[in-house]
Amino acid sequence: MSDQKPLYRTAISLAGAEDILVRGYSLIDLVGNVNLGTMVSLLIKGELPSRAEGEMIEAILVACAEHGVRPPSIQAARQVASGGVQFQACVAAGVLALGDSHGGAIEQCMQVLQEAAAGIKSGEKNAEEVAVEVLSAVRSARRRLPGFGHPVHKIDPRTVRLFQLAEEYGIKGLHCDLAEELTKRSKVILGRALPLNVDGAVAALLSDMGFDWQVGKGFFILGRTFGIVAHVYEEITRERPMAHLPPYELLVYDGPESRPVSITSKSAK
Amino acid sequence: MSDQKPLYRTAISLAGAEDILVRGYSLIDLVGNVNLGTMVSLLIKGELPSRAEGEMIEAILVACAEHGVRPPSIQAARQVASGGVQFQACVAAGVLALGDSHGGAIEQCMQVLQEAAAGIKSGEKNAEEVAVEVLSAVRSARRRLPGFGHPVHKIDPRTVRLFQLAEEYGIKGLHCDLAEELTKRSKVILGRALPLNVDGAVAALLSDMGFDWQVGKGFFILGRTFGIVAHVYEEITRERPMAHLPPYELLVYDGPESRPVSITSKSAK
Amino acid sequence: MSDQKPLYRTAISLAGAEDILVRGYSLIDLVGNVNLGTMVSLLIKGELPSRAEGEMIEAILVACAEHGVRPPSIQAARQVASGGVQFQACVAAGVLALGDSHGGAIEQCMQVLQEAAAGIKSGEKNAEEVAVEVLSAVRSARRRLPGFGHPVHKIDPRTVRLFQLAEEYGIKGLHCDLAEELTKRSKVILGRALPLNVDGAVAALLSDMGFDWQVGKGFFILGRTFGIVAHVYEEITRERPMAHLPPYELLVYDGPESRPVSITSKSAK
Amino acid sequence: MSDQKPLYRTAISLAGAEDILVRGYSLIDLVGNVNLGTMVSLLIKGELPSRAEGEMIEAILVACAEHGVRPPSIQAARQVASGGVQFQACVAAGVLALGDSHGGAIEQCMQVLQEAAAGIKSGEKNAEEVAVEVLSAVRSARRRLPGFGHPVHKIDPRTVRLFQLAEEYGIKGLHCDLAEELTKRSKVILGRALPLNVDGAVAALLSDMGFDWQVGKGFFILGRTFGIVAHVYEEITRERPMAHLPPYELLVYDGPESRPVSITSKSAK
Repeated sequence: MSDQKPLYRTAISLAGAEDILVRGYSLIDLVGNVNLGTMVSLLIKGELPSRAEGEMIEAILVACAEHGVRPPSIQAARQVASGGVQFQACVAAGVLALGDSHGGAIEQCMQVLQEAAAGIKSGEKNAEEVAVEVLSAVRSARRRLPGFGHPVHKIDPRTVRLFQLAEEYGIKGLHCDLAEELTKRSKVILGRALPLNVDGAVAALLSDMGFDWQVGKGFFILGRTFGIVAHVYEEITRERPMAHLPPYELLVYDGPESRPVSITSKSAK
Repeated sequence: MSDQKPLYRTAISLAGAEDILVRGYSLIDLVGNVNLGTMVSLLIKGELPSRAEGEMIEAILVACAEHGVRPPSIQAARQVASGGVQFQACVAAGVLALGDSHGGAIEQCMQVLQEAAAGIKSGEKNAEEVAVEVLSAVRSARRRLPGFGHPVHKIDPRTVRLFQLAEEYGIKGLHCDLAEELTKRSKVILGRALPLNVDGAVAALLSDMGFDWQVGKGFFILGRTFGIVAHVYEEITRERPMAHLPPYELLVYDGPESRPVSITSKSAK
Repeated sequence: MSDQKPLYRTAISLAGAEDILVRGYSLIDLVGNVNLGTMVSLLIKGELPSRAEGEMIEAILVACAEHGVRPPSIQAARQVASGGVQFQACVAAGVLALGDSHGGAIEQCMQVLQEAAAGIKSGEKNAEEVAVEVLSAVRSARRRLPGFGHPVHKIDPRTVRLFQLAEEYGIKGLHCDLAEELTKRSKVILGRALPLNVDGAVAALLSDMGFDWQVGKGFFILGRTFGIVAHVYEEITRERPMAHLPPYELLVYDGPESRPVSITSKSAK
Repeated sequence: MSDQKPLYRTAISLAGAEDILVRGYSLIDLVGNVNLGTMVSLLIKGELPSRAEGEMIEAILVACAEHGVRPPSIQAARQVASGGVQFQACVAAGVLALGDSHGGAIEQCMQVLQEAAAGIKSGEKNAEEVAVEVLSAVRSARRRLPGFGHPVHKIDPRTVRLFQLAEEYGIKGLHCDLAEELTKRSKVILGRALPLNVDGAVAALLSDMGFDWQVGKGFFILGRTFGIVAHVYEEITRERPMAHLPPYELLVYDGPESRPVSITSKSAK
């Protein structure tokens, strides 16, 4: 190391000729000994998690992996693939769509839960008080509570499944309790019961495993990329270029009718 | 048009077999009769601007086109190109870097100026009162005023040049006046004179031409993409793959030292 | 400059505190004195072109700027925008779609024309011989000739317009002649007359202006990005998130029917 | 389903209100019962693999996950993050860099092995003959054999580890044998022993598990995205905007010296 100011510093890994050190562990030792759920926890938090946490993360990523062909991520990936584009760039287009409105509820819900939990941890408030505070703020601001509510289900079956696994793995903690408290009190404060949806369940579980809300979107990206890769492969091997131009019947042009070009020279040189 | 709900509606254009209608104008008529500055105004605002406005936008886009090899947009584009990637995907990588901290001051400054100008237009306040309000808010919040201030210049030469052209073209209006008022009063209220930098000049001029701040980033993207294309072409034709791995001397790994893998089975199935 | 190996070298520009030097010219001097067509030629080829060339490029970019809402680039950009994504990332998604099958005919046609023209320039062959060679190769390989042919037109009106301008500007040269020779002889050799379409016209004109085919895609990207920016802005300001999920009636799932999960343990640890 | 031509067809999944069917399996049943390695095989090939195959894929993805801060994918992701960009767009920038020269050897090697194996499977040739053919073609064309050769190692430790696991899992087959045959005969035919590197090992193993070479890049993307997510998170939480502008000492501008702007009007209107 010279005395120059570093251009890059990282605590994640160091790649040498003989091996790659990941958070202090040899990559060779990790291969075959840890699953991807364990790997991602190590990469992000810097320490090997328990086997239970690795399994829980695998389950979460499987739950996020696929949701049919309609979401913007899959639409974007397949449209780009239909332009005759390299595999990785089609996948990247799909990833780009995972913005605030597409999987964004995970990180938003994590932030709500983590800020609320901080109040409980500091001993200032109990779960009930915190839940009332959060819901009252939602009511006054007339906004949605991210991670809660579902157009169809009273109880989201993916939430049920993930919480059942979390029970088995001993993962559930303060943030899951708080999420359930919020559902319980939403009926009274908001006038309708808000079930925890799958985004909210993932948010509560990631929070209970100690992940910062700022990396919440990363988990959704990791999971959904599995589905995106499959859709890109299907598009490339099964469809012709430009396969998905929407039919004219589904388009509306509501701009001006045909008119002649004429430019005023107002004050131009 | 069927009675189905449209999947897409647009007021921008309608492509048919014979011609493409852009905001009501035949594309064939536009080609050779309008420049790109005129075209972008038509595309965004829906009407042909004066010749002066078209020229002013050309000047703004030229001013944004190139800023050397160091900015993240060029770094990202050239790094991606060095991975053996299609031309358009390298350009896209460069565009991705144009976030809140890289050209973002244009739209942020436009928002400040347009919200302030609304107060003047409504007749409630004059330019002086509005400027004092904006600067006081900046001072209390201890944040930066986007589009103002420069690490080197008292007067940014690009601002001088753009404003000189705007004078010739008759483009300057309320937002430019307001920007100058903000500079004038910054000395007293903030304790240092904040010159309008090039982002701020572009913001004021786009505002005076009637562009919504929400499209401000679009102009920076359009301009800088000219530079990105040139850098991608230079990278592809002049450098070998993986040409820019930063040297080891500029890297610091500050993660844990080497350690053995061992996973606890806490509560796993 | 130290004696370290450079991490980046560029002949395009040098950004300093006082000014930005672009191919040796002060950016301040370029602003207001050159249009974008001139700027892109300078950025790519390193020299200021004639005023005529700058105008011709402006016309080409205007011709490429917009083609309605159906192409994959616009679909991808608007889908990504509907996910709640930053402006520049939506534009990048649109750019990603501009692959081999979406605007790719420009660079492909440039390569064909430039390789054929090399034979003429070297004095070995005349335009007629070269055209026959190219068309015979197309016939044997049973592939398409990029830049030629059109599903609707005998004569593409955009080609007519661009060539008319090129005549005025004095731009037409060997590659345009060769393109016309190819159309003329296609009737006999391929059994159907192949009109030069707009991609082919752009390819011939860029080649006559001395641009390398490897940068051909760059021009299409630059032009179409103007349209993409307008569509992203329209999407963001006019539509709700997730606005374009294709209706269920347009989807077909042809995978397996519902079945139970069961995994064989074949040779697992 | 109407009689309209479908806009999208897929055999991958069907998302309904109650559940998501993935290749015929309920997503709820998959969560917690299959790992990500199993999930990706199901998504791509359409059938649940053996537990062994799922474990092998997990090991491969862990091996691909991280390789330090220097590769273009990480550089691009961190540069884009430093521009003040949403999480998913930074990840996408990293993915974009995974082109032909960055992980591309996996799919290229898969194609070589699968085409060679087709000759063996059809009974026309044995492994020895096929290996000699492949190596002779490499020698005549003076190109590299993708997946083989290593700047440092005689034996790549990651190859050793993956092949040891493949032995345990009972995964090794014809393509692994062929890869070893190629190494064995390279000494004689090419004059230097070409060890199978990690890209080649992954290629042989994916081929033996029945994956089409066209999806080979997908596995590298899936693995490396785990590393990219960690680097983006580290960048966002630990560094300031624009943190990695390369120092001036590492840049070289070798374009023209400063000169005045002057445009000739050759044949312009």
